Amino acid sequence: MNYTSEEANILVQALPYIQRYAGKIIVIKYGGNAMIDDDLKIGVCRDVVLMHYVGMKPILVHGGGPEISAVMQKLGKEPEFVDGRRVTDAETMEIVEMVLAGKTNKGIVSIINNLGGRAVGLSGKDANLIVAEKADGDVDLGFVGQVAKVNPMILTDLLEHNYIPVVSSVAIGPNGESFNVNADHIAGEIAAEVGAAKLMMMTDVPGIYSDFADKSTFISELKVADAKRMIRSKQIGRGMIPKVEACMTALAGDVERTHIIDGTMSHSLLMEIFTDTGIGTMIVP
Amino acid sequence: MNYTSEEANILVQALPYIQRYAGKIIVIKYGGNAMIDDDLKIGVCRDVVLMHYVGMKPILVHGGGPEISAVMQKLGKEPEFVDGRRVTDAETMEIVEMVLAGKTNKGIVSIINNLGGRAVGLSGKDANLIVAEKADGDVDLGFVGQVAKVNPMILTDLLEHNYIPVVSSVAIGPNGESFNVNADHIAGEIAAEVGAAKLMMMTDVPGIYSDFADKSTFISELKVADAKRMIRSKQIGRGMIPKVEACMTALAGDVERTHIIDGTMSHSLLMEIFTDTGIGTMIVP
Amino acid sequence: MNYTSEEANILVQALPYIQRYAGKIIVIKYGGNAMIDDDLKIGVCRDVVLMHYVGMKPILVHGGGPEISAVMQKLGKEPEFVDGRRVTDAETMEIVEMVLAGKTNKGIVSIINNLGGRAVGLSGKDANLIVAEKADGDVDLGFVGQVAKVNPMILTDLLEHNYIPVVSSVAIGPNGESFNVNADHIAGEIAAEVGAAKLMMMTDVPGIYSDFADKSTFISELKVADAKRMIRSKQIGRGMIPKVEACMTALAGDVERTHIIDGTMSHSLLMEIFTDTGIGTMIVP
Amino acid sequence: MNYTSEEANILVQALPYIQRYAGKIIVIKYGGNAMIDDDLKIGVCRDVVLMHYVGMKPILVHGGGPEISAVMQKLGKEPEFVDGRRVTDAETMEIVEMVLAGKTNKGIVSIINNLGGRAVGLSGKDANLIVAEKADGDVDLGFVGQVAKVNPMILTDLLEHNYIPVVSSVAIGPNGESFNVNADHIAGEIAAEVGAAKLMMMTDVPGIYSDFADKSTFISELKVADAKRMIRSKQIGRGMIPKVEACMTALAGDVERTHIIDGTMSHSLLMEIFTDTGIGTMIVP
Amino acid sequence: MNYTSEEANILVQALPYIQRYAGKIIVIKYGGNAMIDDDLKIGVCRDVVLMHYVGMKPILVHGGGPEISAVMQKLGKEPEFVDGRRVTDAETMEIVEMVLAGKTNKGIVSIINNLGGRAVGLSGKDANLIVAEKADGDVDLGFVGQVAKVNPMILTDLLEHNYIPVVSSVAIGPNGESFNVNADHIAGEIAAEVGAAKLMMMTDVPGIYSDFADKSTFISELKVADAKRMIRSKQIGRGMIPKVEACMTALAGDVERTHIIDGTMSHSLLMEIFTDTGIGTMIVP
Amino acid sequence: MNYTSEEANILVQALPYIQRYAGKIIVIKYGGNAMIDDDLKIGVCRDVVLMHYVGMKPILVHGGGPEISAVMQKLGKEPEFVDGRRVTDAETMEIVEMVLAGKTNKGIVSIINNLGGRAVGLSGKDANLIVAEKADGDVDLGFVGQVAKVNPMILTDLLEHNYIPVVSSVAIGPNGESFNVNADHIAGEIAAEVGAAKLMMMTDVPGIYSDFADKSTFISELKVADAKRMIRSKQIGRGMIPKVEACMTALAGDVERTHIIDGTMSHSLLMEIFTDTGIGTMIVP
Repeated sequence: MNYTSEEANILVQALPYIQRYAGKIIVIKYGGNAMIDDDLKIGVCRDVVLMHYVGMKPILVHGGGPEISAVMQKLGKEPEFVDGRRVTDAETMEIVEMVLAGKTNKGIVSIINNLGGRAVGLSGKDANLIVAEKADGDVDLGFVGQVAKVNPMILTDLLEHNYIPVVSSVAIGPNGESFNVNADHIAGEIAAEVGAAKLMMMTDVPGIYSDFADKSTFISELKVADAKRMIRSKQIGRGMIPKVEACMTALAGDVERTHIIDGTMSHSLLMEIFTDTGIGTMIVP
Repeated sequence: MNYTSEEANILVQALPYIQRYAGKIIVIKYGGNAMIDDDLKIGVCRDVVLMHYVGMKPILVHGGGPEISAVMQKLGKEPEFVDGRRVTDAETMEIVEMVLAGKTNKGIVSIINNLGGRAVGLSGKDANLIVAEKADGDVDLGFVGQVAKVNPMILTDLLEHNYIPVVSSVAIGPNGESFNVNADHIAGEIAAEVGAAKLMMMTDVPGIYSDFADKSTFISELKVADAKRMIRSKQIGRGMIPKVEACMTALAGDVERTHIIDGTMSHSLLMEIFTDTGIGTMIVP
Repeated sequence: MNYTSEEANILVQALPYIQRYAGKIIVIKYGGNAMIDDDLKIGVCRDVVLMHYVGMKPILVHGGGPEISAVMQKLGKEPEFVDGRRVTDAETMEIVEMVLAGKTNKGIVSIINNLGGRAVGLSGKDANLIVAEKADGDVDLGFVGQVAKVNPMILTDLLEHNYIPVVSSVAIGPNGESFNVNADHIAGEIAAEVGAAKLMMMTDVPGIYSDFADKSTFISELKVADAKRMIRSKQIGRGMIPKVEACMTALAGDVERTHIIDGTMSHSLLMEIFTDTGIGTMIVP
Repeated sequence: MNYTSEEANILVQALPYIQRYAGKIIVIKYGGNAMIDDDLKIGVCRDVVLMHYVGMKPILVHGGGPEISAVMQKLGKEPEFVDGRRVTDAETMEIVEMVLAGKTNKGIVSIINNLGGRAVGLSGKDANLIVAEKADGDVDLGFVGQVAKVNPMILTDLLEHNYIPVVSSVAIGPNGESFNVNADHIAGEIAAEVGAAKLMMMTDVPGIYSDFADKSTFISELKVADAKRMIRSKQIGRGMIPKVEACMTALAGDVERTHIIDGTMSHSLLMEIFTDTGIGTMIVP
Repeated sequence: MNYTSEEANILVQALPYIQRYAGKIIVIKYGGNAMIDDDLKIGVCRDVVLMHYVGMKPILVHGGGPEISAVMQKLGKEPEFVDGRRVTDAETMEIVEMVLAGKTNKGIVSIINNLGGRAVGLSGKDANLIVAEKADGDVDLGFVGQVAKVNPMILTDLLEHNYIPVVSSVAIGPNGESFNVNADHIAGEIAAEVGAAKLMMMTDVPGIYSDFADKSTFISELKVADAKRMIRSKQIGRGMIPKVEACMTALAGDVERTHIIDGTMSHSLLMEIFTDTGIGTMIVP
Repeated sequence: MNYTSEEANILVQALPYIQRYAGKIIVIKYGGNAMIDDDLKIGVCRDVVLMHYVGMKPILVHGGGPEISAVMQKLGKEPEFVDGRRVTDAETMEIVEMVLAGKTNKGIVSIINNLGGRAVGLSGKDANLIVAEKADGDVDLGFVGQVAKVNPMILTDLLEHNYIPVVSSVAIGPNGESFNVNADHIAGEIAAEVGAAKLMMMTDVPGIYSDFADKSTFISELKVADAKRMIRSKQIGRGMIPKVEACMTALAGDVERTHIIDGTMSHSLLMEIFTDTGIGTMIVP
């Protein structure tokens, strides 16, 4: 490309935002269609590399729902869910881990590095990054876990050496066993633990609505207290709940800003960062 | 355990070897039955953790043959080999990567960390560690690659922060695609590139024999020139060739000592290190 | 500003150029109308702050011709020139130094810092940055000097701590006296001495022409040998000669790329950097 | 020089004082006749270089009254004062800045560097060192400011790399404009902000007297409370007040010792430092 | 030596203990027969070198009773003791210092270095490590001192550079004079001051007994309150008292574990460290 | 002391010499009467502390002849010399080491530290600083050694942390045994090995004379070739020879300046350093 003066001007408009986030850690929960559509994938990764080069410190966290079910079905196993959570027997856990840590994670790493970034893929097992315990709940879901402890040193060591960490949502249990943990929750815990300036949760919708059916009820800023009320009243739907919970975890850990954004828009990450009013729904304390 | 004076004495006998390798990098090609048998697995990992704590800097490299074939068969694909190398179409490559980077690698990481180590699993894609190109050869084996370049910085960065790198034998191609590369060769290239003091190649036999049928012909020290001759004369069998080649690559890169050892013996790593004469076959320049 | 997706896309187009110059030193000779026109001034400074924040290490070098003459005239002294060089008696030198180091330099520093940069103004006297000797020549021009030695440590120390050095073209003589030195030449010497990746010389014209009257004869790339020939043949005019000489000095000191660009275009610095073909005339070895 | 044993002995007598101030920051307000008389100038600068080499960390702060008025008069502007403060319209401010930052500052830097020191001249604009706001007061004095904030990082960065900072009394306003700020006050604020061990204010008299007409009333140590009383009672004259205020600011900021000394005595700085009882008037909490 | 698999296994059993003390400071009061018997000497030094190489940071403290008396007698002076403390006139002090700092200390240093360690011998005078004052008491014992202050920086500087400090029990008085200080007390004070994880006091008996005559009354863990009571009741004998006091000083200074062990057993240091239950008597808060 | 202006002036005269040796290592062979006379002792140590505080890095090396003989005689052993070298049987070596490392060394350390320095005493055994082998020669002198290797790291580590190393002339043999080595030779070897800027050898005479009986034949500068000739012709006496040899060793190791000076003059070290022409005899290449 050859920049015109007008295009250079657009670049310069980004300056205040670049200054604001220079040296700051930004945790991105990567998910939804942005992980499926090839153009969106490359778009997200390029945005991340740009963030890295203009001085921010992005960390990506991802799950990998559809890919897991696809592999399970090829292996003749039928995915089963209870309240949106995957029933995870030992064999399923093995598949989950292979797909998340071996396919999805390395696929993202590969795209970022091909665009000139320096990504390193991690699972929660590496350096005991995410220690899990068996998830609470009425139903025994098997190897479904919840975060017991984050050991963030491997993340800060990698950031210090200018790598881009990409974290898959597999955690290590007390005896070295694997646990399948909600990636939204992991993103929130990591953001809190590393002192991130911003947490961005990618979804496939523009954000939160008072009434999802009525697009005019879009909420651009939502207080934690109101979010809790909307969860109780089921105005916030099941898929959105862990994202909102992740934001609340992050806010409790002094993350400055938390956002739910629409990953299906191209350059949604940049639009959120390089904008005063932000896009999507910002959850505030 | 409570040490007796005699047992403490055995500890003290290790001192000269501990001194010799203090701060030195030791590359271990982990493979064979030691990756299948659960007791051997834990044994190898514990030896590695010990090496780490007494001041050495171990790097593990692994492939994962049997596990790959097992998953392929579950998925209804029949493994196919030409001259010992796996025919790797796109779908196979995806399975190879899932198994190696998602299952085998994280399994080893998990055992080491459970024993108190601080392992971080990597594939050749992470930070572009292993860049591959399509393998030469008469037959098109698909995504079978050979090492084009090693970018060892992620290894030295991790070693500097006292992590134990565990590397799976998946490499990144010029366009970000995955390549299946022989793990023996990767171990040799890494040893040469990071300036290792020692390369240890685990096999399922005690080492190299002039005549494998006659156990009295065991060779404890083998010159590179003689090794080449024995390859040409087929005295060194097909499975052993890449291990010997790895040693030759390492020696060309100024690695001090290279060894082919029997991973089915418990504590084979320690026996090799804490011994004047060594075990197995040492390949020398 | 709120970025649209299209605008974010323009940002992303800058990525390869940002990557190319990450951590690299870029010396900019700031001069001409861009130092007089207030909008251009702010534009240049904002471009410099952007370069700084996206990871480059800019150094600005400036003279200050018109301002000097203005102050002299207020003081009742008539500026006098021989072959384009100012006749500089002791009193004139005092005025030159006051204007360059006290007015022009601090003015630039002030704009940059007001835009969020961290500029530090220097004259060649600070830490003996530019040591001069009396200029050669038939006519005695008084305190007109030429560079005898550059002591770049204060520049590298400031860059290491993320400051933006702004250097005025006053130098220190062997006995601590002041010398008026051509700012173009200082820029070239500094670029060579600090190992800059790029030298950009701002002028008020688009670059070099074979025949300035015929705009179709614009030269986008000029070999040093050809530049020398064009100087001898007076195709390159007197004002342009020190700029071309600065480029040649820089190239001799292994600066990768040297450019003569039109500072009267808004965002000329960014257009040069964020472009494959470049703008202006590039002088090459 | 060739030292005799007696002279070497004098050197050795300095040892306890050298030990006491090793690594400590000493802020010197340089002013009065010591800035006009050429021998005194060189004397002060040589003392500063000595202090630097025996392990102290001196910072010089200066204004430049007489030089400013001289340049103004050459430019046909009559200096005007209200209560000892210069009425500073925009044109005057430009002259003030040119003289202070371009002539006086670089003149001091040049002498120090010629004596083997490594001075770097700064104005309050560099790295936003001194941020000012318009001075309070009944009369509008134009661009006369007072210190709003000190950003001492550029000072500590330079000291860490063994430079001698020389600071002129020009400050930066909220919109990047220049302000003329009392140099005494700046010295006091800097001393407080960098954690100096000592502040020395140079004057043209031996110190403070109860009754200036009666030399027998010299005060060698003055408590802050008494100083305040003497200011109210006008025993401390107008010129001395900002010097006393600077000492009080410094003491409030935990500077250990503050002194008003006679800069017209040769080696006054060294005599103050290398003496138990001190010279001049010491202001104490 | 060539390790068998069984011997390697003994090595591996040490792993948890090596992990526990990695990077921790361990202060060892070296004394009793282990300083006289040549085999024990070499044994202790080899254990210390092993501890050093497996990542611990040992500091040795020693006195040297029998050697002092031997030299005194050669010089025709009869050693004299009051309540177990040596009467130390000026001449005796000179002998004490020569023997401790010149003979005993350098002898230990020499053995350790010959075994591949990097020991540096210190007396309490070096860098003012141990400042003493005259000991309290009814009888004037001359130059017998007690610890007034520990300046541990030379120890931590040496440990940081991987040296093994060996400290003799000579201290410096307020006027630079030498003091003979109990080595047990010095060990306790140093352990407290450097933040040691463990203090081990070597004696010639297995530890503390309720009734020394009845070996069945051995105490493996003793509370500070009980120890005080046993001192008052003289169940703890005169020679053992300073050892117990050293442990109490260390515990008051947050040392984690303190032990009284039998230095006449070979590998007593290792047996204490590489054992869950420990050997000897552990003093606990 | 209270400095007068004249005394301060003497201080300032030292500045060029302080600048010349800032950060430079200066090795001082301390010996002769300056080690016996109490006033001279304190004088030398105070000069060393001054050198340290004005930024030089002194290392002291000492032997201790008279003290050794005195102790030997007290022990009933008659000192015996062959060609000026002490016959050193095992028992004598023990005495030599006790006196040098335990008495003389710690005495010097104590005086320096009492004057505010931070000395650390070392023998050649500490960190294997001086490795010796049995001295060549026709007569077997027992444990008289010559320098085989210097391991200077402990010196540079201590200098880096601002300690003043004081080295006694005891060395370690290949089996850990002690050797008595000429302190002059050790000083020369250390100067060469640490890259000293200056070596000063203290004697009891003003320097070297062509004819010692005729004081008018004093030589202030002596070429190595001439020194060799004067040794052969016995113009340089036996006691002076090792001092001249030390200078030659140092010069061969690129030490800039080597001097033989009169330690009986007070402040001889400072007079040599703070003087253009120097005192004593300078040996030059």
